[in-house]
Amino acid sequence: MQIDKAEIIARELIRESDAAYLTTIAPDGFPATRGMLNLHSPERYPLLKEYLGERAAWELLFTTNTSSQKMSHLRENPKVSVYYCRPQLWSGLLLCGTMEIVTDMSVKEALWQPDWTAYYPGGAGDEDYAVLRLIPQRAELYHQLDGAKWEI
Amino acid sequence: MQIDKAEIIARELIRESDAAYLTTIAPDGFPATRGMLNLHSPERYPLLKEYLGERAAWELLFTTNTSSQKMSHLRENPKVSVYYCRPQLWSGLLLCGTMEIVTDMSVKEALWQPDWTAYYPGGAGDEDYAVLRLIPQRAELYHQLDGAKWEI
Repeated sequence: MQIDKAEIIARELIRESDAAYLTTIAPDGFPATRGMLNLHSPERYPLLKEYLGERAAWELLFTTNTSSQKMSHLRENPKVSVYYCRPQLWSGLLLCGTMEIVTDMSVKEALWQPDWTAYYPGGAGDEDYAVLRLIPQRAELYHQLDGAKWEI
Repeated sequence: MQIDKAEIIARELIRESDAAYLTTIAPDGFPATRGMLNLHSPERYPLLKEYLGERAAWELLFTTNTSSQKMSHLRENPKVSVYYCRPQLWSGLLLCGTMEIVTDMSVKEALWQPDWTAYYPGGAGDEDYAVLRLIPQRAELYHQLDGAKWEI
């Protein structure tokens, strides 16, 4: 598959995937995957569509708890992958790169959703509210027995 | 959550998940995830229900292509995780362990599905038809803001 076509399918998959599957590497060397909120889905996060649409093309943002296991994994080893997929369509996108912990309060505030006070009672300033940023280095798309690999 | 309750939910999740998300570690240290056929779903693979039901309680079997990237990852580093989930139910199961490549032809033949000749023209004896086995060492279940971790 041509890269330009693969990029179009990849972006659609990011928008349509039920969740983002983030994998970190635990200190004992085993990978650890968990589903993350897919903030890049305009259907699920309509309030974020404009803000995320104006940011860098391949920047992916995630929220999590500062106290979570993935954060302790990331501090030791920031190499991660994120997988987006639609199993029914035989379509999957693997993105690999180095995850950053975002400390910029303007980004944390821009992502904040009103109903997240259930998880972070202190709002966007809550110490347990963390934001992660991935600008992937490489992508692999599998789509209905076709696919592509490219550097970003 | 009590472990016995978590195990019940975990087994249900394995049966109901659209796919199994297998993560290997690439030689450059990045994790790599891809969706795999969920052979342990009786809805998707009714012909396998009896055979798999008679095998060891936590044995998970997968099929793949001998020539695939995951196989070259596994030969260098067999530490993997498999993730099952139902994102709509906020339910996810992480299983970590060491993946084995199955060479026992009786297992490969027992898993064989008639329509797989589209992928492996030579049938169960096709050189590109590979079977993988995971007996996980540890499990982590997340289920609707509750969860459990245990050794298997």
